[in-house]
Amino acid sequence: MKKTMKNNQQNSDLAPKWLETAPIANSFRSILKWGDKDAFKNPSTGFLEVIKQELNLIDADFTKMETTGNQILKDAQPVNLSSEDLAGLEKIVGRENCSVATYDRLKYTKGKAMEDILSLRKEEVRDICDLVVHPRHKEDVKAIVSRCHDQKIPVHVYGGGSSVTFGLDCPKGGVTLVLSTHMNKLVSFNEANQTITVEPGMMGPVYEDLLNNAVEKLSAKKSYTGGHFPQSFEFSSVGGWVVTLGSGQASSLYGDAADLVISQEYVTPRGSFKTIEYPATATGPKLNDIMKGSEGCFGILVSVTMKIFEYMPENNQQFTFIFPDFESAVAAGRKISQGRFGMPAILRISDPEETDVAMQMYGLEGGVIDKFMGFKGMKKGSRCLMMGQAEGEKSFAANVLRQVKKVCRKNKGFSLTGYPMRKWYKGRFSDPYMRDALNDYGILIDTLESSVTWENLPELHKRVRKVVKANPHTICMTHASHFYAQGTNLYFIFITKMPELADFRTYQQSIIDSIEAAGGSLSHHHGVGRMMAPWMERHLGVEQMGVLRAIKAHLDPNGIMNPGGMGL
Amino acid sequence: MKKTMKNNQQNSDLAPKWLETAPIANSFRSILKWGDKDAFKNPSTGFLEVIKQELNLIDADFTKMETTGNQILKDAQPVNLSSEDLAGLEKIVGRENCSVATYDRLKYTKGKAMEDILSLRKEEVRDICDLVVHPRHKEDVKAIVSRCHDQKIPVHVYGGGSSVTFGLDCPKGGVTLVLSTHMNKLVSFNEANQTITVEPGMMGPVYEDLLNNAVEKLSAKKSYTGGHFPQSFEFSSVGGWVVTLGSGQASSLYGDAADLVISQEYVTPRGSFKTIEYPATATGPKLNDIMKGSEGCFGILVSVTMKIFEYMPENNQQFTFIFPDFESAVAAGRKISQGRFGMPAILRISDPEETDVAMQMYGLEGGVIDKFMGFKGMKKGSRCLMMGQAEGEKSFAANVLRQVKKVCRKNKGFSLTGYPMRKWYKGRFSDPYMRDALNDYGILIDTLESSVTWENLPELHKRVRKVVKANPHTICMTHASHFYAQGTNLYFIFITKMPELADFRTYQQSIIDSIEAAGGSLSHHHGVGRMMAPWMERHLGVEQMGVLRAIKAHLDPNGIMNPGGMGL
Repeated sequence: MKKTMKNNQQNSDLAPKWLETAPIANSFRSILKWGDKDAFKNPSTGFLEVIKQELNLIDADFTKMETTGNQILKDAQPVNLSSEDLAGLEKIVGRENCSVATYDRLKYTKGKAMEDILSLRKEEVRDICDLVVHPRHKEDVKAIVSRCHDQKIPVHVYGGGSSVTFGLDCPKGGVTLVLSTHMNKLVSFNEANQTITVEPGMMGPVYEDLLNNAVEKLSAKKSYTGGHFPQSFEFSSVGGWVVTLGSGQASSLYGDAADLVISQEYVTPRGSFKTIEYPATATGPKLNDIMKGSEGCFGILVSVTMKIFEYMPENNQQFTFIFPDFESAVAAGRKISQGRFGMPAILRISDPEETDVAMQMYGLEGGVIDKFMGFKGMKKGSRCLMMGQAEGEKSFAANVLRQVKKVCRKNKGFSLTGYPMRKWYKGRFSDPYMRDALNDYGILIDTLESSVTWENLPELHKRVRKVVKANPHTICMTHASHFYAQGTNLYFIFITKMPELADFRTYQQSIIDSIEAAGGSLSHHHGVGRMMAPWMERHLGVEQMGVLRAIKAHLDPNGIMNPGGMGL
Repeated sequence: MKKTMKNNQQNSDLAPKWLETAPIANSFRSILKWGDKDAFKNPSTGFLEVIKQELNLIDADFTKMETTGNQILKDAQPVNLSSEDLAGLEKIVGRENCSVATYDRLKYTKGKAMEDILSLRKEEVRDICDLVVHPRHKEDVKAIVSRCHDQKIPVHVYGGGSSVTFGLDCPKGGVTLVLSTHMNKLVSFNEANQTITVEPGMMGPVYEDLLNNAVEKLSAKKSYTGGHFPQSFEFSSVGGWVVTLGSGQASSLYGDAADLVISQEYVTPRGSFKTIEYPATATGPKLNDIMKGSEGCFGILVSVTMKIFEYMPENNQQFTFIFPDFESAVAAGRKISQGRFGMPAILRISDPEETDVAMQMYGLEGGVIDKFMGFKGMKKGSRCLMMGQAEGEKSFAANVLRQVKKVCRKNKGFSLTGYPMRKWYKGRFSDPYMRDALNDYGILIDTLESSVTWENLPELHKRVRKVVKANPHTICMTHASHFYAQGTNLYFIFITKMPELADFRTYQQSIIDSIEAAGGSLSHHHGVGRMMAPWMERHLGVEQMGVLRAIKAHLDPNGIMNPGGMGL
């Protein structure tokens, strides 16, 4: 059943013909397509207009599609595992939980980086695993890791498959364990402690639904929220959030994934362990910290205990403000983060280019709000949007809103009501669908992101934009969306046409280079994978990488756990 | 100049004669005495009455003092370092920054555990270092660590000397670096990022004073607070807070020491490094986490960047409540911690025994407040005090107070105004002085503490109390003083007479055993040291200890860094 998500109206005669049919079964497109196979979201008229203008395109550029990848994968790739190993692994989990089909091996080793998608559209099959296994429980994982350790077979993990850093590639082949098939269950729920323990393959919506409906589903006294909503929420797993150090759209209040983890249980070649479950403890460096973000390079997460929060959506308070320039908006964001009145859950600041695109995307340009802005001297090309939502206990949320307003007014901000925020909120998980539609006409969209201290933010913004914009006809939208008293993140979205994959790779690397050189973190919440790996030693220094390597050498002496991931 | 801190009035004819003169220079007592050599705090009449009653003592027990340790240390201990090594180390820092005097070697290797003090009172000299060095800066530390690594000489660190877990002992001799002598300076202050970078030997009051007076002292626009106030605040160092995972009395809002650390710089035998300074980052497991709490076993902290907070003491709101029983008080504490309205900075719940002692200590028993409680059915032996302070932005703090009141009333609590809280607040750093006075009459006071989930709290409280109380005539006061949505800590204070050190040791070990067996953490904020070390492997499991050992083996291949500390 086709589900087309509404954007602003399009004149169907003039609009490009979008591909709104489910991908052919077993096609490359069925692997690369974002999310639900039957769901689509096309750029709004306004957004498309911006793209045409900035990328110097005309209607004729939207008449013929590029390679869509809607071709069945036919060529079978050889399996580089001995028949003894294959039989041994099959014996552990059962034949029905194993596959050597090339389609499966490709599907579970590709993420959603632009390069992954371009390569799939070109029907390339590379860096795939030899065998896909769907373990049923942690005992399966133990047996598999033990055998692979003995036989020196690489082991990788697939959760929701939303990696944008080549986190799933298997350049050395081996086995990929898909945890979302069976290992997606509730382990336990503790209302007194406000914790839930789940298997790592539980997907975001299932997790949140369990908590929101805890009264019915978990016999709880109240309902809860996990507080973690990455853009990939619908197609990412709880375990994936933890092992890649993800962050959700409401992180400014609830914390990043790392802050939500109370305890983890791992299977490693060296042995299995569960970290102790205390709200805090002073017994030396904590394995609960050491294992977070290890991206499958130290071992496999088999259960995780997370903090939960009382669910109080009735108290949510939306706000939107417009500022005359980026500097004022960032100053307000900093003051809010340092204001000591508690944080809004969601807080987002768009730079001028993103603000202008958003105005068109949301159909605000030329309307009442736009006129109001003009009246207030908020000029296109300079003005900046701030949006957010306060959550929590009623008076707390109301006070956060009151203080946010106070800070914004002091920093030249004007309220635009909660309308644009509610508009964004509705589409907050579905924007990735648009990428497929644009890709069909050869328009690339990719993102890179970084964290940065307040002091260094202007420099990072300026330098990275300069490198992105060095490529002509490129849109570069930037926002800050995760706030801390000490700084924030910058999330760069770039949209351009670039037919050659090799060119795109060079371009992307130049942007990563500029992030690192300008003093940003290599990653705020996308993790490291194989994309950032080459920069890790320069970024952390050889001494710090040495410690990570020492931990790996101890837990994984044969180097079988996600080899090459994170540069380890 | 003698400074006697006032307690409730004592009838000077009946009261014991307290020793209120500064210890003799170079005496054991000058090492064991808490804090300022000229400052004294004696138990109030009320407190002394409780002690007499519970410990079954009479006035005659307060006529003759035990060994006070007020004897000059005369015996010189041999130095087990070669003259080449001594000369080499002297050459690095200068002769004026080295000492082989036995007094110095004892002074800088003893902490403030009850056993340390008993042993000093008995004029014992053991587990001391061979050489005390006062490094001037991190280059000195680098040169010392390098030489000691080459020569396999153990290296220990002394900050404020307030360890209560034998964290400073040198059973293998070697060198102790005193960081509070010279390495106590401001490195940098960043108001935009709300961070301060200091050398680790800066003491609590200097640190807080710099921040409170940042406008004058740091040319800042505003004044700040570090938000970290352990009971040892006046005699502990910033570095010590970080490397032992300390926690302050206001941790429920500001976080534990570990939460306050943005970046650290270490010197290790393997090399030196500074962790990257971001508010958050997703570049794998973070060295900033791995090094926190390493207690000098991985390397030496030479500078640390901490979060700071705008200082707004004018908004503070004190509260005190009385509950009919521990269960109701804990239930209220849990509801506050899970209430999503922000946390009070200070929150403390005393169990019935501590409540009764506090009532007497603060001279409340028999007064108006006591009568009010009786009227409300709050019975001695069952009733429990909760005290606290909300801080932060004005409306935030006011709302926290309002919500705390609401929760307390729902859980059978009655407000006692802010008076008892203000009373506690005044004496919050000076109580340790009382221990010396009581010790003079052979009355031992020691503490052990643990963290625990809400679910497990009643069991931990019951089981540990049972073991403490198994010793007849023992006071066991317990409080929870660091609150999290997932649980809290329990802090056990036990007061008894026990003349033999060996008996005391056995007794203490039985209490630690009971904490661990009842599911508490081995330590909430006292660290591990050598006291908890024997339990570490059982507590964490061999797999997790294995990782800590692997990190140590990598950073400190010759095992010279605080050998035996934390069981590593």
